[in-house]
Amino acid sequence: MVKVNENYLKLKAGYLFPEIAKRVKIYSQSNKSSDIIKLGIGDVTEPLPKACRDAMRKALDDMGTTEGFKGYGPEQGYYWLREKISEHDFISRGCKISPDEIFISDGSKCDSSNILDILGEDNTIAVTDPVYPVYVDSNVMTGRTGDSLKNGTYEGLTYLAINEENQFLPKIPQSKVDILYLCFPNNPTGATITKEELKKWVDYALQNKSLILFDAAYEAFIQDKDIPHSIFEIEGAKDCAIEFRSFSKNAGFTGVRCAYTVIPKNLLGFSSKNEKIKLWPLWNRRQSTKFNGVSYIVQKGAEAVYSLEGKKEVSGLIDFYMENAKIMKNKLQNAGYTVYGGDNAPYIWIKVPEKMTSWDFFDFLLQKVCVVGTPGSGFGLSGEGYFRLSAFNSRSNVIDAMERIINI
Amino acid sequence: MVKVNENYLKLKAGYLFPEIAKRVKIYSQSNKSSDIIKLGIGDVTEPLPKACRDAMRKALDDMGTTEGFKGYGPEQGYYWLREKISEHDFISRGCKISPDEIFISDGSKCDSSNILDILGEDNTIAVTDPVYPVYVDSNVMTGRTGDSLKNGTYEGLTYLAINEENQFLPKIPQSKVDILYLCFPNNPTGATITKEELKKWVDYALQNKSLILFDAAYEAFIQDKDIPHSIFEIEGAKDCAIEFRSFSKNAGFTGVRCAYTVIPKNLLGFSSKNEKIKLWPLWNRRQSTKFNGVSYIVQKGAEAVYSLEGKKEVSGLIDFYMENAKIMKNKLQNAGYTVYGGDNAPYIWIKVPEKMTSWDFFDFLLQKVCVVGTPGSGFGLSGEGYFRLSAFNSRSNVIDAMERIINI
Repeated sequence: MVKVNENYLKLKAGYLFPEIAKRVKIYSQSNKSSDIIKLGIGDVTEPLPKACRDAMRKALDDMGTTEGFKGYGPEQGYYWLREKISEHDFISRGCKISPDEIFISDGSKCDSSNILDILGEDNTIAVTDPVYPVYVDSNVMTGRTGDSLKNGTYEGLTYLAINEENQFLPKIPQSKVDILYLCFPNNPTGATITKEELKKWVDYALQNKSLILFDAAYEAFIQDKDIPHSIFEIEGAKDCAIEFRSFSKNAGFTGVRCAYTVIPKNLLGFSSKNEKIKLWPLWNRRQSTKFNGVSYIVQKGAEAVYSLEGKKEVSGLIDFYMENAKIMKNKLQNAGYTVYGGDNAPYIWIKVPEKMTSWDFFDFLLQKVCVVGTPGSGFGLSGEGYFRLSAFNSRSNVIDAMERIINI
Repeated sequence: MVKVNENYLKLKAGYLFPEIAKRVKIYSQSNKSSDIIKLGIGDVTEPLPKACRDAMRKALDDMGTTEGFKGYGPEQGYYWLREKISEHDFISRGCKISPDEIFISDGSKCDSSNILDILGEDNTIAVTDPVYPVYVDSNVMTGRTGDSLKNGTYEGLTYLAINEENQFLPKIPQSKVDILYLCFPNNPTGATITKEELKKWVDYALQNKSLILFDAAYEAFIQDKDIPHSIFEIEGAKDCAIEFRSFSKNAGFTGVRCAYTVIPKNLLGFSSKNEKIKLWPLWNRRQSTKFNGVSYIVQKGAEAVYSLEGKKEVSGLIDFYMENAKIMKNKLQNAGYTVYGGDNAPYIWIKVPEKMTSWDFFDFLLQKVCVVGTPGSGFGLSGEGYFRLSAFNSRSNVIDAMERIINI
């Protein structure tokens, strides 16, 4: 008799974004003429850079000839792409990350959940709260938590609040935690961390032999020169951290699918007998066995991100979305809202009006002015009372949405 | 202290294909002028169909405009692709598989290993022997086996021999097994199964409430009209089977990356309390949480496989590779080799000369005539004494390789 993985039965109702999509669908079905502006999911809207499209067209030409045809590529990604990443994203910032330490994948969502494959089931886990739901759900699915509690949290997980009270900087745990998820610039709050503060986390991890899973998917949006783009800008991080990066948000690859994960060659985990085990060979084996590499065509598109033309176009996209964020923040602040984020991240994190919950405000905005955002509580208990708006949209939609909200 | 998943430490030396690549690399480094013909990995060599390339170019044009730009797509795949698959691959063969039951992915290697995510750890597992190593290794990695034994097998797995003695048809297990991996047309032996024989497996699974994981990656190579292309051609299979399919081998997508998995809506697993749990919602949740869909561009390429032009081109590719297989089989048989497979599959399964092991024969062919194949023992204990040659290569390379082998 085939048994299921019962950990899945612990999961609460649908993953946040499908739930939002459902509510929007139901609303639009009964309000045919409604003109909905979606500032919910953090999904880019501007066209794919020409440099990337040109490179992908050339790759398609290659695939049309016997000489240029590419079958299975390396599971770790093509070396020419890993070299570009090493040079432009790390060496240029003083981080000694070699091409070998970079694993190309089809998405950070996959990597940040698949990484648990190589880690023991008995690790203690800390996530920030609010948090990108994938970190939590992937732990639930693999039996690393207990049951869900009434308040929506899971037994066995350590939640580190990020909110007004701590200026959106989570407190370092008092007790020992084996694995810590950090995301900066933060999704969903748009908060950032200084090198000095991040150093404290690295020191904690080194001292406790913990592993930091650092999600830097939004690094391209950093405007302030003092904010680190990579955890590897911090001394000691190569001995305690894995970093997830993506082409989704900088180059608009959400529909193209390319990301990468950095695993330093000497990064250690431990066996139950306290033996030192390098994590790099485990991930390499995981990817070789359970993954077949990213489309050659897509990798050629990703490589073009690092060309002169590509860099210029990506920079233009970032400026465009950050100008959106600025407009949103100003308009909402002028209308009396308390607003966080938006300065070094494409997310605006607003306090919802008193006596409303996050989902109340979601339904309110949807039904009153046809604007879709993401309820803060969907990201965790400490997200209650907040609401996320994404700066990923056209200028006219952003201005229109703001006008609608401030004129309610 | 961060603990690793110690199941990884049970894995034997590198995954088969990386091991082959390593030996070839070492050989070519010390034999610069050698002209190696690779008939090892089952990787296609002919150009990508024009219909697919044209569709992907059009998709790139879409991505270059604000109106046509596509961000995150459905994690399950675009419905237009799932509809085409349902119609052309299933309904046309009398299998009632709806688009909803089809999940698009970036590869069957991923799907056939990730599927374990939704299944309990205490299931008993049977694999054929020889077998595609991914089935075994993914079970080892997730703690579903014991340690490896000296002979290369793993404790706790049930191995079902496929060899000359049983005419390459595995025997149905005597005892109850919860999960059975079947691959027909078979990789690596090239063997096939009739509807009548496959029905016996379905009946066994229904009777024992077992799950069949059916890998049909090579169905396009079937020439004989009586051989089933899908397990869903067998009555009852929708209640006991999941099927993996791929665009890799028919349309040459090994470097493009697209596949799909069929999970019938009413297919059941069981909880430890014997409750019936549908598998479809579990996989849907798994994919929604840990996967972000396949590149829009790639899915457009896959859709073109079902166009009139695409079908014609795919058919041409299949004919080409099967003509290769025919040439190989004839030449080798005439030279006195005992040869299996190659009639309905792109693999030739030959008996190695007496007193040689499979790896001996590998090194022998590499060093004597610079031809690379795959040692049968790399696929399992019962593969010892056999050797796989793939028909995926240019006509001239195939003829050249055969001439070299028969003239040793």
